Amino acid sequence: MRRKDKQISDIEALHSVINKATVCRIGLVKEDRPYVIPLSFGFDGRNIYFHSARTGEKVEILKANNHVCLEFEQDISIIEDEKPCDWSARYLTVVVHGTAELVDDLVAKKYGLGQIAEHYQAGGEQYPFTDAEIQPVLVYKVTIEEIVGKISG
Amino acid sequence: MRRKDKQISDIEALHSVINKATVCRIGLVKEDRPYVIPLSFGFDGRNIYFHSARTGEKVEILKANNHVCLEFEQDISIIEDEKPCDWSARYLTVVVHGTAELVDDLVAKKYGLGQIAEHYQAGGEQYPFTDAEIQPVLVYKVTIEEIVGKISG
Repeated sequence: MRRKDKQISDIEALHSVINKATVCRIGLVKEDRPYVIPLSFGFDGRNIYFHSARTGEKVEILKANNHVCLEFEQDISIIEDEKPCDWSARYLTVVVHGTAELVDDLVAKKYGLGQIAEHYQAGGEQYPFTDAEIQPVLVYKVTIEEIVGKISG
Repeated sequence: MRRKDKQISDIEALHSVINKATVCRIGLVKEDRPYVIPLSFGFDGRNIYFHSARTGEKVEILKANNHVCLEFEQDISIIEDEKPCDWSARYLTVVVHGTAELVDDLVAKKYGLGQIAEHYQAGGEQYPFTDAEIQPVLVYKVTIEEIVGKISG
């Protein structure tokens, strides 16, 4: 990060941005090209979980390169000024770098889905996912290698 | 895209999502790793423009690999249901794949900055940017290779 004055290092503040975000955006690499889409997710304070249908572009890309970048935002807005050059942005962003692994173990898969459900306050870990509900879904667990927060405005 | 029923092909609708977005997210590739950050931008209906300080991670990454993915969103929300498995997302997203070139020519640079200012309704192309205002800024022009829209909910 160029502007060290804008860096957030308080881990509680970083986790709060993740916990409050409705979606994040996942960045992937397909050969030498970037691919970005919005993503629903769950977070247990240690790993980020997301799910997917069994087929699709995300799944194919992750088979070849499982590096991920997850971007979370809070309160992005534009601060107007008299001259366009003096306009600036107000924002709080968290960027996570890591790797995504498929979760195969049934108990671990239920746990990951529980984290996603809990993020959306849908009953969370308490909800008794059945094996039939879990079968058509892929669950990925993101191991966080780096987490960077930035605040401005 | 796996779900062809969710694809938006009307170019007016795609452009409308871009024009209404406060920020987009830019995905880049640093070696074999993804990098995603939010980005303010301008759009003239043909190319997307963004600006940057003369140094920083984005600038360094783009020197080595100028493939970009720009993601725009509108109205993302979660549709609740009785069971977590029946929850779904309502969204309208546009994903642009392209390449970003540095704009060197002064007239073209002013035009690009004008598009960004216009996007934020800050006077736009009419604002008389001075050479001194433009000097410290890098302006990138994105040539769009593919544009994909998706709607759900």
